Amino acid sequence: MMNCKFVLSNRPNGVPEHSDFKMIESEIPDINSGEVLLETMFLSVDPYMRGRMREGGDTETWKLGEVMKARVVGEIIESGHEEFSPGDIVTDEYGRGLEWAKYIRVDGDKLTQVTPELTPKSAALGVVGQTGRTAYFGLLDVGRPKPGDTVVVSAAAGAVGSVVGQIAKLAGCTVVGITGSKKKRKYLTNELVFDSAINYKKDEISSRIEEICPYGVDIYFDSVGGEIRDAVIDYLSIRARVVVCGKIALYNDEESELRGKRYMHQRKRVREEGFVIGDYEHRFEEADQRLMRWVNSGDISFRQTVVEDFKNSPGALIGLFKGDNIGKQIVSV
Amino acid sequence: MMNCKFVLSNRPNGVPEHSDFKMIESEIPDINSGEVLLETMFLSVDPYMRGRMREGGDTETWKLGEVMKARVVGEIIESGHEEFSPGDIVTDEYGRGLEWAKYIRVDGDKLTQVTPELTPKSAALGVVGQTGRTAYFGLLDVGRPKPGDTVVVSAAAGAVGSVVGQIAKLAGCTVVGITGSKKKRKYLTNELVFDSAINYKKDEISSRIEEICPYGVDIYFDSVGGEIRDAVIDYLSIRARVVVCGKIALYNDEESELRGKRYMHQRKRVREEGFVIGDYEHRFEEADQRLMRWVNSGDISFRQTVVEDFKNSPGALIGLFKGDNIGKQIVSV
Repeated sequence: MMNCKFVLSNRPNGVPEHSDFKMIESEIPDINSGEVLLETMFLSVDPYMRGRMREGGDTETWKLGEVMKARVVGEIIESGHEEFSPGDIVTDEYGRGLEWAKYIRVDGDKLTQVTPELTPKSAALGVVGQTGRTAYFGLLDVGRPKPGDTVVVSAAAGAVGSVVGQIAKLAGCTVVGITGSKKKRKYLTNELVFDSAINYKKDEISSRIEEICPYGVDIYFDSVGGEIRDAVIDYLSIRARVVVCGKIALYNDEESELRGKRYMHQRKRVREEGFVIGDYEHRFEEADQRLMRWVNSGDISFRQTVVEDFKNSPGALIGLFKGDNIGKQIVSV
Repeated sequence: MMNCKFVLSNRPNGVPEHSDFKMIESEIPDINSGEVLLETMFLSVDPYMRGRMREGGDTETWKLGEVMKARVVGEIIESGHEEFSPGDIVTDEYGRGLEWAKYIRVDGDKLTQVTPELTPKSAALGVVGQTGRTAYFGLLDVGRPKPGDTVVVSAAAGAVGSVVGQIAKLAGCTVVGITGSKKKRKYLTNELVFDSAINYKKDEISSRIEEICPYGVDIYFDSVGGEIRDAVIDYLSIRARVVVCGKIALYNDEESELRGKRYMHQRKRVREEGFVIGDYEHRFEEADQRLMRWVNSGDISFRQTVVEDFKNSPGALIGLFKGDNIGKQIVSV
């Protein structure tokens, strides 16, 4: 009996093709003390893998000819680790990925038992695993839903989106899914508890969102990017949150300037937030006192650009757009 | 003696021109009980005014032929309000703007005394007024600086930017200003305490930022938008914050798609934040337990798309990008 593994044989240009992968055979390895030998039962494929196939990608890059990585659920068939015995069903504890292979030799410390009550066991790769966790933390910690919020989820029938929508319902939100087929749309509203769903291949997203979300979109959970994102953000409400989970629409587009820049906001966990000063009216006194203290202590110095004469005030405004001023532009009347 | 006021006579196309404003004369008004008559000493002109001149702008729109608004510091020359006497120097308490006029009749409740120790009094329109407050809350509450952070400020020699940079220094940050002339650049580093400054009309922003900010940009305080923003965001660090204060580079561009969409993020106080699941490793157990409970209770249901046979695993990955899956894509080995 031989082992089978997949190696990356070509860097894809656009959507990966079968010829970019090559299956190789090898001996089933012997294990050392502390290690176990796993027989893979289920293997998880995920959109982030596209980034690993790209040279100079933002994250880890898979080398050509090297065995790729994947998250798996497997059965232990040989154990040199005290916590595991043959027959145990295990998965990669932190979701960092093992070898994309039928038989895997691995340090037992990297594994965890799949919860016995979990059925099917493959759910340890999804809803009670990395994609479920992604939905859980992305929605709850980053998006911070409140009851009554309207939550729009892209890739809504996917592993992450379907869980995001359901947790949002548990949190008392109205949930709208965006998905790519009639079948998926029905899955969201008939089998799951989504309040509505949009088939972006058939419906015009903008007009549907406008109709379905009369109070605007409070949370947009985005796994897609591109045109769908651009359509949804027109309808964001005051203090809306956009959770940047992924950009699958851009992953295969090597040319897109947006791929890099927008994806970066995810990889770097960037928080971009608008603000308007009027919201802080109840704290103006705090700011003024502190600023006064800093001005008096010399910690803050300031300049003004003063234009004389009331009749020159339009010119003072016009000058602002040309950058004529240093410090505050003022008209002395 | 007559009053002078400015009305909007044309909606600008691009940068406002003098012909878009018209000065009109009128009688100096009588006041009623509770009101005061102000003689304007200083009048503030600010970039947000450009938005008021645009029809269907995101905020309040000034009507054609109507007296425009501005923040002012003035002396009370007649008082029908118990808190004020002639000779008092006052300003508009909440910075919402009074009439753009030499003499202003106004409800005394809307006014506040300018702090006696403030010199010059016009600073109540700047550093100890609306632009100082904008710097204070935008940097401290939205940007949340930590000692050691690198803060990049655009429009750095302007009323807001110059104060942002100085507060950032007080907070223990390294501060880089972006500005539009050699004179302003010198003002930032020689007169103020900016660590460095970039003249975007002369220097190439990208290479300068790369050189000056070896650890990346932790906070970008953006009052400008456009190309400067696009250059800076390439250098954001992990968990960087972009404070969207304004987009002056886009305010006069009626055509720009970006004007609307990017400006919206400010007006709507949108928070956009990227996240990566690995950051939550220490809380995976929490997520898994909660998800397991929801799966068991039926609150969360899930589907999987299972592809059979290890050799079909590349096809399962390829299918993800085509949207073939409903729920988690799994390979059953």
